[in-house]
Amino acid sequence: MKKYNIGLIGAGFMAKAHSAAYATMPMFFWPVAAVPVRRTICDLSEEGARDAAARFGFEKHTTDWRDIVNDPEIDIIDIATPNDSHAEIAIAAANAGKHIFCEKPIARTTEEAKAMLDAVKAAGVTNMLAFNYRRTPAVALAKKFISEGSIGKILNFRGTYLQDWSADPNAPLSWRFQKKIAGSGTLGDIGTHVIDIARYLAGEIDEVCGTLDTHIPERPLQQGFADKLGTVKSGTHAKKGPVDVDDEVKFLLNFRSGASGSIEATRNGWGRNNYITFEVHGSEGSIFFNYERRDELQVYFASDPADKRGFRTIYTGPSHPNGDALWPIPALGIGYGETKIIECHDFIQAIATGQDVSPNFEDGYKIELICDAIKASSMDRKWVKTNC
Amino acid sequence: MKKYNIGLIGAGFMAKAHSAAYATMPMFFWPVAAVPVRRTICDLSEEGARDAAARFGFEKHTTDWRDIVNDPEIDIIDIATPNDSHAEIAIAAANAGKHIFCEKPIARTTEEAKAMLDAVKAAGVTNMLAFNYRRTPAVALAKKFISEGSIGKILNFRGTYLQDWSADPNAPLSWRFQKKIAGSGTLGDIGTHVIDIARYLAGEIDEVCGTLDTHIPERPLQQGFADKLGTVKSGTHAKKGPVDVDDEVKFLLNFRSGASGSIEATRNGWGRNNYITFEVHGSEGSIFFNYERRDELQVYFASDPADKRGFRTIYTGPSHPNGDALWPIPALGIGYGETKIIECHDFIQAIATGQDVSPNFEDGYKIELICDAIKASSMDRKWVKTNC
Amino acid sequence: MKKYNIGLIGAGFMAKAHSAAYATMPMFFWPVAAVPVRRTICDLSEEGARDAAARFGFEKHTTDWRDIVNDPEIDIIDIATPNDSHAEIAIAAANAGKHIFCEKPIARTTEEAKAMLDAVKAAGVTNMLAFNYRRTPAVALAKKFISEGSIGKILNFRGTYLQDWSADPNAPLSWRFQKKIAGSGTLGDIGTHVIDIARYLAGEIDEVCGTLDTHIPERPLQQGFADKLGTVKSGTHAKKGPVDVDDEVKFLLNFRSGASGSIEATRNGWGRNNYITFEVHGSEGSIFFNYERRDELQVYFASDPADKRGFRTIYTGPSHPNGDALWPIPALGIGYGETKIIECHDFIQAIATGQDVSPNFEDGYKIELICDAIKASSMDRKWVKTNC
Amino acid sequence: MKKYNIGLIGAGFMAKAHSAAYATMPMFFWPVAAVPVRRTICDLSEEGARDAAARFGFEKHTTDWRDIVNDPEIDIIDIATPNDSHAEIAIAAANAGKHIFCEKPIARTTEEAKAMLDAVKAAGVTNMLAFNYRRTPAVALAKKFISEGSIGKILNFRGTYLQDWSADPNAPLSWRFQKKIAGSGTLGDIGTHVIDIARYLAGEIDEVCGTLDTHIPERPLQQGFADKLGTVKSGTHAKKGPVDVDDEVKFLLNFRSGASGSIEATRNGWGRNNYITFEVHGSEGSIFFNYERRDELQVYFASDPADKRGFRTIYTGPSHPNGDALWPIPALGIGYGETKIIECHDFIQAIATGQDVSPNFEDGYKIELICDAIKASSMDRKWVKTNC
Repeated sequence: MKKYNIGLIGAGFMAKAHSAAYATMPMFFWPVAAVPVRRTICDLSEEGARDAAARFGFEKHTTDWRDIVNDPEIDIIDIATPNDSHAEIAIAAANAGKHIFCEKPIARTTEEAKAMLDAVKAAGVTNMLAFNYRRTPAVALAKKFISEGSIGKILNFRGTYLQDWSADPNAPLSWRFQKKIAGSGTLGDIGTHVIDIARYLAGEIDEVCGTLDTHIPERPLQQGFADKLGTVKSGTHAKKGPVDVDDEVKFLLNFRSGASGSIEATRNGWGRNNYITFEVHGSEGSIFFNYERRDELQVYFASDPADKRGFRTIYTGPSHPNGDALWPIPALGIGYGETKIIECHDFIQAIATGQDVSPNFEDGYKIELICDAIKASSMDRKWVKTNC
Repeated sequence: MKKYNIGLIGAGFMAKAHSAAYATMPMFFWPVAAVPVRRTICDLSEEGARDAAARFGFEKHTTDWRDIVNDPEIDIIDIATPNDSHAEIAIAAANAGKHIFCEKPIARTTEEAKAMLDAVKAAGVTNMLAFNYRRTPAVALAKKFISEGSIGKILNFRGTYLQDWSADPNAPLSWRFQKKIAGSGTLGDIGTHVIDIARYLAGEIDEVCGTLDTHIPERPLQQGFADKLGTVKSGTHAKKGPVDVDDEVKFLLNFRSGASGSIEATRNGWGRNNYITFEVHGSEGSIFFNYERRDELQVYFASDPADKRGFRTIYTGPSHPNGDALWPIPALGIGYGETKIIECHDFIQAIATGQDVSPNFEDGYKIELICDAIKASSMDRKWVKTNC
Repeated sequence: MKKYNIGLIGAGFMAKAHSAAYATMPMFFWPVAAVPVRRTICDLSEEGARDAAARFGFEKHTTDWRDIVNDPEIDIIDIATPNDSHAEIAIAAANAGKHIFCEKPIARTTEEAKAMLDAVKAAGVTNMLAFNYRRTPAVALAKKFISEGSIGKILNFRGTYLQDWSADPNAPLSWRFQKKIAGSGTLGDIGTHVIDIARYLAGEIDEVCGTLDTHIPERPLQQGFADKLGTVKSGTHAKKGPVDVDDEVKFLLNFRSGASGSIEATRNGWGRNNYITFEVHGSEGSIFFNYERRDELQVYFASDPADKRGFRTIYTGPSHPNGDALWPIPALGIGYGETKIIECHDFIQAIATGQDVSPNFEDGYKIELICDAIKASSMDRKWVKTNC
Repeated sequence: MKKYNIGLIGAGFMAKAHSAAYATMPMFFWPVAAVPVRRTICDLSEEGARDAAARFGFEKHTTDWRDIVNDPEIDIIDIATPNDSHAEIAIAAANAGKHIFCEKPIARTTEEAKAMLDAVKAAGVTNMLAFNYRRTPAVALAKKFISEGSIGKILNFRGTYLQDWSADPNAPLSWRFQKKIAGSGTLGDIGTHVIDIARYLAGEIDEVCGTLDTHIPERPLQQGFADKLGTVKSGTHAKKGPVDVDDEVKFLLNFRSGASGSIEATRNGWGRNNYITFEVHGSEGSIFFNYERRDELQVYFASDPADKRGFRTIYTGPSHPNGDALWPIPALGIGYGETKIIECHDFIQAIATGQDVSPNFEDGYKIELICDAIKASSMDRKWVKTNC
C-alpha cells in the first residue's frame, strides 16, 4: 500500500477539516490504494506552527511554505490559506512536481487561475479543488439519478447559498471582506460552490446575467489576523474599514444544453446558516436538496402512479454513492467531515491510479471565467457569454 | 344591514370559489356592514347557466352577460371568465355604475388594462382584482411584521410560483396556452400573483431583467371549451396545436426602495402543485412562506439571544390578521376557500364604507406594466424600467 | 333533486362549521342526490337565535329545541350543543323519526350512548357522528392504501392529538373542564377523534392500558356561558373553580387483528395546535399523517428499489378520495371547512340512498366502551378489555 | 499534556467510530488536558486483527483481549464487542486498574451489570457507557434549556427509536437477534438509548408499564459471524433460525418528578432509519428533537408574544454546547462522528481530571433495572416499579 506525504499550508478551520480527513480516510475507505501521511504543516508563526503540528498530528512544522514545496519527501501540497497566496504556492508546487489539493476558489483572478492551470498541465501533476459539497452523498445521488435519466431532460436548475454569519454589521472586517486578499466576496467564497454543483449536475454554463451588491459597506477593524468563520463576535470597535467585495450575488444563467436557471448567494440571509440548496426540474421528474438537511435527497418521479406521486425523501446510506464506506445505516449522520473524507479518498485514489479527478484546476479556471462574466454582466446590466 | 346583489359571469372553478365565499362570508365575518346576495349567474349555454344557478345558489341565470350588466338591481359584477373578455365586460360594467370584482390577471394587454382603469376611475366604482393569495393569513402576517419593522429594512425578496398540472406534454391545449385568449402564460397566470405579493410586501418595482421560455411547444387539441385546471387528463390525441405562450418565466428585479430580488414561475415543476413561496431577507430578520403549507409563516428575529435563534414556525390563528373571523384555534385549517372569504369580505366592506381596497385595477395596470417590461427584457436581454 | 330541511341546535363554533358545509356542499359535490336546506336554528336566547339565523342563513329560529324536533317539516336534526344535552335531544329526535347528525363525543357516558343507539335503531333513522377528521382526503387516502394492501399487514398504529389552547392555567373554566357537562376532558373531546381514526384504519380495539392525568387542577371562573375554543384569553380572575376532567391521556392498545399501538392526547402540548398525527407501520410500508399539514400524506413503500426508497409526500388532489369534488389541483388548500363539506355530503347521500354511513351511533357507543376501559385501566393500573 | 494508551477490543462498525474519534478528538478540542493514543487493537483472527491495526491506526494487535487487559502500558480498555462479552472483559479490566469505555447496553442482564458496577467501584477506575446520542449538540442544548427552566416544569416526555434495517424478514439472523449474545432485542439495543436520554432530560424513572413484541419470529441463518448493521442484504437462504428477542417495545412511564411519558422502539418501522425523537412538554414551553435532522432543535417558548409564538428551529453551532470545538458555523454538519468525538473528549477529560462522567456503569445498571421492570410489566400486564 502506497503512502503519500502531505505538506499542509495553513492552520485554520480548513487545516482542521483536512487533517481529520487524512487521519480517518483509511478507516472508512478500506482497503484503499494509498494512504496519506501527515508530514509537515506550515503556519506563519513558529508557535502557531508547532501548536498546529501537535494538534493536527503532523510530524514536522515550518513557518515557510517553501520548505514544504522544496522538501523531496513531500508528495502532496495542500493549500489551505487565504485566496491571495493560492497562485504563488500552487505554481511553485507544480514546478516542484507535487500533486496539489487547493482550497476554493482557485484564486483571486482569472489570470492567476490560468497561470495555475498552465503550471499543473505542464508539470502533469494531479490537481484538485476543494469544492467539497458535490461529494455529499445526497448530491452524488442527484448526479446518479440525472445521469441515469430518471428525471428526464433537465429544464431548469435553481441554486442558492445563503448564510448569515456576517449579516450583523458589527462582525469584523476579516480577510473575506477585502478584495486584495479574497478577490471577491459571496461570489468567490460561496457562489462558486453552487456554480460547481450546477456544472456537475447540468453541464457547462454558456451565458449569465446578474448583479453583485454590497449591503454592508464597512465593518469594524480586526486586531491581528484571523479567519474563524462564524465565531466572529459582534462588538463596538472604535474604527471601521471599507468592505470592497460583494455580500450578495444573484444571476440568471443558460446552460449549453438548453437548460436555464438561477443562482443566488448572500451573507445577509438571517436564519440561513449553510443553506446550499438546488432544485432541478426535468422533463420527467424533479430533485430538491438542502445541505442543512444533507442526509436527505428529495426526488419526484413523474412516472409514479397518479395517486402515489410525491417527493420522496431519501436518506442516503449504504445503497447510495460512497455509502458502503461511510456508516452502516442511513441517517446515522453525514456531517461536514464526511464530505471531506470522500474528497480526500477520491484525490488520493486519483494520484495512485493516475486517473483524472474533478473538480480540478481546469474546472476552477472555468468557474473564474463564469465569475468574470457575472461581474461584467453586473457592470453592463445585460447578458454576457462565459467563454467556457 | 345592506345587501348587494351579485351578477357572476362565468361558471367554472372560479365561479365555485366565489359563490362559496358569497354564501359563507357572513358566517365568518359577523356582524358585517353588508352582505352579498347571489342574484344572477351567466354561462354560455342555457343548460350550463341553469345548472350553475342551481349548483351555486343563484336566483336567476342568463347566457348573455349584458343582461347582468344592464340589470338595475345588480350592484356588483363578478368577472370569472377567461382573460380575453375581462376588458369588454369590465368597461361596460363600470359605465353602468357597477362595482367590479375581476379575476386576475386584469387583462391580456396593458392597453386593455389602462382602458379598464380609466373606466372605473371615471365611474367612481369600487374595483378589485382577485389576487387572493395575499389574503392568506400567513401572508398578511408577513406584511404586519414588515410594516412593524420586526425584520428591519428589506434587502431581498425572492418569490416563486411553481406548478406541474401541465408538465405532462399530453395535457390538452386549453385556453391558458393560447395567447389570443390568455394574453400570456405563466407570467400572466401565476407570475402576476407573485408580483402582487412582492409589491404588497416590498413596495413598487422599478426595473426588471428576465426571460420567458416555452419548453412544451405544442399540445393535444381539446374538444369543446373547458378550463378545469388540473383535472386535465393526459391522453393520445390525434392532433396537436401550438402553444404560443410561456411556460416558464424568471427575472431579477430592483425595488424602488433599494431592495432587490428574483421571481420565478413555471408550469414544468414536477412535484410542485401550488408552490407559491417567498423569502424576505431584512436587516434584522427573515421571513419564509410556502403556500403549500399555508397555515404557517416562518420568521427569524436576529434580536433573539444567540443560543435561542431560529426560524419560528408560526401557525396562524386568532392572534393573527383575520384570525378572529376564521377558526377558533390555529391549524384547524386554512384552505383555498378561506382566502376567498377574506377577499370577499374586504371587497364588500370597501363598497359599504366607500374606502379603497387593494389590489385594485390600478394595481392590475401596474402589474401589466411590469409584465411588459419583463417581456421587453426577455427580447432585448437587458434590464428594463417598469415605468410604474 | 331531494331537499332535506335541517334543524340545527346550537349556535357556536360548530354551528358555523356545519352551516358553511350545508351552504356549499352542492357547489362542490354536483350533481348530488339531495341537498340540505337550512330551515331552523336554535339558541338559548331569543336574541342569540335571531342573530344566528341571520348569520348562518336559516329561515327560522327558536329558543326551544323541542320546537325543531316536533316540526314535521324538519328532516334532519343537527346536534351541535355541549355533550350533556346530546342524549336527550337525540332520543327525542329519533322518536320523532328524524335523521340525526350529532357532534362528538356521542355523550357523557356509555349509558347515554347505549340509549341513543337503541333509539336510532328502533326508529330506523340515519345517524352519524361528527368525527370529521377521518374525512380529510389524506386520511381517506391512508385508508385506501391500507385497504389495497399497499403497506402490507398492519403491525403498529401510533396516534396523537396534542393541543395547547388551554395549556395556560389562566384560560377560563369553560364547560369543557367540567365533568357534569363534558363527561370527560381530553379523552372524550380529542382522544376520541384518534380512537375513531385508529378503528377506521386498523380495525376494532380489543384491550387497552393507560392513564389519565390532570396537570392543571383549577381555572378562573368564567362569566356567563361560552365555548369559543382558543379565543379564550388568559387573565387574572379573582375566583377559581376545580377542573374535574383529565387534561392528558395516554394508553397502549391491542387491536383484534393482532396489531398494537399507542395513543396520546393532551391539552398541555405548548406549540401543538391541532396536532392530530398517526404513524402506521405495515409489513411492507409505512404511513405518516399530521393534520397541521393536512394536504399531505407521507407514505413509504418497501417495494421501491433500494436506492429510491423514501417517504413520499403526497399532496392530495383530484387523483385522491373526494378530490374531484374539491379543488382542481393539489395544494390549493384543504381547510377545516372541506372536511365538513365531505362529511355533510356523505351524510346527506346516506339518507337519500338509505345506505349506512360511518362513524355512526354504533361507532360512538363502541368508542365510549373503549373510553370506559381506558378509565378503568387508569384506576386499576393494568390492561382492560374493551368489550367491543 | 498527558497521553493515555488505548486498548480497543473489537474491529467492527464501532471500532471504526471509536478509532476515528481517538484520531481526531484533539483536532477539535484543543488545547486539551490529555490525548488518547491508539496502542493495541484486538480481533478474533490474526488476519482480522492485523488488518484492523493498519486500518484504524493502532501500533499493535492481538487476538486475545487478555493481552490488552494485562498490558501495563495500557491505560484504557475500550469494549466494542457484542454484549455477551462485556461483563467478563470489563471486570477483568477493572481488576487490572484500567479505565473503561464500554459500548451499550452495559450487559445482557442486570446481574452482569451489577457485577461490572461493583468491580469499577472497587477499583476506583473511570467508567463510561457509549450512549452517545445524548452528546448530540442539539440534545445537550435541550438539557441546557430544561436546566435553565426555559420551558418550566416538565409534564411529559415522549421518546422513540424507530428503525427499519431489519424490517425485511429476509435480513439474516445476526447476533442482535439472539438472546444468549444480545440479552434482548430492541429494548437493549436501541430502547436503552431513549431511556438514557429520558433520564438525562427528565430524571429518574419510577415505574413503567409496557409490552415487548416479536413480529418476525425467524430469520435466515448467517454464514460466519458478522455485525454490519444495515449492510445486511436480504436473500433466500435455505435455513432459518429462531429470533428469541423482541423487535418492538413500547411502554408508558412515570418519572420520580411527577412527569410521565411514553417510549417506543421498533425494528419494523419502514422508512425510519435512525429515528430517535423526543418531545418534551413543559409548563412554559416544549422541545422536539429528531436525530435524523440532528443539527436542529425545535423549541417553543410560551412566553413569546401571542402573534410571534412558534416552534423555533435552532441549528446548533458555536453558541451551543460543544459548539466552539466543532465547526465554525451552524449547519456545516453534525454527523455520527461528531457525537463520538465529544464522547471521547468527555471521557478522556474525566480521566485526566478525576471527575465523574456520565452515563457511567451506575447509569447502565439502573437502565438494566428499568429494562427488567419493562419485561416484568410485559409478562404481568401491569405497572411495575423500577427500583431505581
